[in-house]
Amino acid sequence: MSAAPLRIALAGMGTVGGGTVQLLSEQAELLAARAGRPLRLVACAALARPADLPLGDVPFYTDARTMAREAEYDVLVELIGGSGGVALDVVTIALERGRHVVTANKAMIAHNGIRLAELAEKAGVSIGFEASVGGGIPIIKSLREGLAGNRVTKLMGILNGTCNYILTTMRESGRDFGDVLAEAQALGYAEADPTFDIDGIDTAHKLAILASLAFAQPVGIDSVACEGIRHVSALDINYADELGYRIKLLGVASLTDAGVETRVYPAMVPLSFPLAHVDGVFNAMVTEGDFVGRTVLEGRGAGARPTASAVVADLMDLARGRHTPTFGVPVDRLVARPAAPGGAHRSAYYIRLMVRDEPGVFADVAAALRDEHVSMEKVIQRGRAPSETVPVVMTVHETDEASMLRAVARIAALPSMAEPPRMIRIEDL
Amino acid sequence: MSAAPLRIALAGMGTVGGGTVQLLSEQAELLAARAGRPLRLVACAALARPADLPLGDVPFYTDARTMAREAEYDVLVELIGGSGGVALDVVTIALERGRHVVTANKAMIAHNGIRLAELAEKAGVSIGFEASVGGGIPIIKSLREGLAGNRVTKLMGILNGTCNYILTTMRESGRDFGDVLAEAQALGYAEADPTFDIDGIDTAHKLAILASLAFAQPVGIDSVACEGIRHVSALDINYADELGYRIKLLGVASLTDAGVETRVYPAMVPLSFPLAHVDGVFNAMVTEGDFVGRTVLEGRGAGARPTASAVVADLMDLARGRHTPTFGVPVDRLVARPAAPGGAHRSAYYIRLMVRDEPGVFADVAAALRDEHVSMEKVIQRGRAPSETVPVVMTVHETDEASMLRAVARIAALPSMAEPPRMIRIEDL
Repeated sequence: MSAAPLRIALAGMGTVGGGTVQLLSEQAELLAARAGRPLRLVACAALARPADLPLGDVPFYTDARTMAREAEYDVLVELIGGSGGVALDVVTIALERGRHVVTANKAMIAHNGIRLAELAEKAGVSIGFEASVGGGIPIIKSLREGLAGNRVTKLMGILNGTCNYILTTMRESGRDFGDVLAEAQALGYAEADPTFDIDGIDTAHKLAILASLAFAQPVGIDSVACEGIRHVSALDINYADELGYRIKLLGVASLTDAGVETRVYPAMVPLSFPLAHVDGVFNAMVTEGDFVGRTVLEGRGAGARPTASAVVADLMDLARGRHTPTFGVPVDRLVARPAAPGGAHRSAYYIRLMVRDEPGVFADVAAALRDEHVSMEKVIQRGRAPSETVPVVMTVHETDEASMLRAVARIAALPSMAEPPRMIRIEDL
Repeated sequence: MSAAPLRIALAGMGTVGGGTVQLLSEQAELLAARAGRPLRLVACAALARPADLPLGDVPFYTDARTMAREAEYDVLVELIGGSGGVALDVVTIALERGRHVVTANKAMIAHNGIRLAELAEKAGVSIGFEASVGGGIPIIKSLREGLAGNRVTKLMGILNGTCNYILTTMRESGRDFGDVLAEAQALGYAEADPTFDIDGIDTAHKLAILASLAFAQPVGIDSVACEGIRHVSALDINYADELGYRIKLLGVASLTDAGVETRVYPAMVPLSFPLAHVDGVFNAMVTEGDFVGRTVLEGRGAGARPTASAVVADLMDLARGRHTPTFGVPVDRLVARPAAPGGAHRSAYYIRLMVRDEPGVFADVAAALRDEHVSMEKVIQRGRAPSETVPVVMTVHETDEASMLRAVARIAALPSMAEPPRMIRIEDL
């Protein structure tokens, strides 16, 4: 192997950083054979030197900015995290020095990706961010390269392993959200502050990145409508099962006549749906392309080793001299599209009411739906408990969101409602 | 767009050739934006000029060899088919002239891939064959690039849309094999001579290619053990349903201590298995990598438009200057491994016996299993019909194939057997 090594500077030595060092060390020979040249770690930076990693005598920096500025490397791998701060600084320094960048940082790409892509273009270098979405699944490579002959009109994914783990465990155990979240935190599957995951923000970052790649548009993180899973109850999961659905937190992006829709929300999906059986910490993405039709990619969405696999895939591309514009086309070819107005979105819905079991309640509910032209599909009202609070569950046929919200507002105002109605979209392709 | 166009010569204008011409024409602007240069069809060849394709004034050849030899192009796209003959000739000519090749021809890659890879290396050009496996699904890109940081130890796929369509239709309609095959032929989903598909040969070609990529070994088409779906009956599909399985024709490759196993066979897979819900003409591949864990890729495995999507993905890589060795590493780095001996393969099994309903039959069957140390899991024997032929269905726990075959041979020799026993592997990951 006589070709010059690809010199790697690694910033951030947490879970993913550690996995990446392990992979580069364990598979060194394999990687060199596949890349035609060795991949060599030449510098690393973290707040403290980790004792348990095979770092050998690789120069270590406690200040990642100093490493980015002073070390000699071909590619900087940023695994610090956060949309700005040190992560953004080291990436900016590397690009301005004309060095490639590989990152797992979805927040940074979602918020600053376009600016960084411009810097990369100016310097004639690449930004790899396969690890930012879907862990080890080659989602970004598929969108940027594998489906490059297609106009993608819709994509949809389970993009957050924490939420999918919580929803899967709720279903399997029958336990409620708070209980399962606490357990996930104890097991290390959820952060101490779980907001980013469970409120859908992490999914929104990833969705904005995927929509940009798929539709060749600037990353529109601010126009992603975002709803998390805090309000999904064991009761709803149970009814979903009974109706033949699974509840999943989806990120959905589609090109419609009214503009681009990018939305994150918990949805019921039928068992025949390709995402229905993606459980636990697995992630998956469904894409609709005009030539290829539907493709589905599934795999582990997080964790040291899967994410390291994605980081190294990007490094292998650089080692082989394989380059692609950051968002599939040069920045000046990205076309901003208007966001579709929310109310026009059409979908079927599940609605759960908690009502006092009195005569005539259901007639009032049915009238509210009729008045807003919402057409009922199924009703489940089990048993009777006069004067007590009982659940009434309905599904309605596809309708526009504005009508649905008006109907639900009418229903919420009925005197027999004991709690605000719960509404979950039913998603199909 | 000032960069020089990628000049394409297209040999073969059947279904996939037509789809490719359509894609290049319809998406010309999109492709140019993504590739940074136009993709231009500069020559095409077929037995007769197709009237319905947007070929404009592109020079047309009735002899593909002449085109390969005389036209000026950067890449030859071979869509003629067949492991040798004209297809192999035109590809060889193109490589010897130092031109890139893109092909959808699995038989040619399976039988002559190594020799062609050597030619390509000598000439410093690339061979793209994404379209040869899994239609539009970016399977080969994922193995060669997306999972390049992994040692892949096992892969498994539903790789033939015709077989999957037949098995799915048999299950949904309850009809038998011959009947559904005849219908598939009438609908154009199966060839007039369906041998290649239903006897597993097409799957074997694709599996040999994938195993070569995954394990960095020469394509071992001759060591693929191959069993098709002719013997799968409606009765077995029905029992599979009852036991919680689906029957799928699988191609399975794994690295074991005893060597490489590459096998094609119909198998029962549990409903929780990632391939259980891949129905109709869809294909899918499951890969196990040492860092990434399990990934699943699914999509349309055939058809003009999905296959054209894969052909164009390869063309886009060439247009962008993205090159990868044919089988992931240079030919001299491929390592031939011994094929694992068949009898050592371990698996659980389903067995269906057709027996005359006489006292003591089951004791004889149980004794045969016990004598070969095969451990029974479940038995289904429904109803009684003294002296008539009735099915007895069993599943047995994981055992080695040699023991299983000996036990089944003993059972087959019992006087009460009305038909030879049927045996189907039960596959899990």
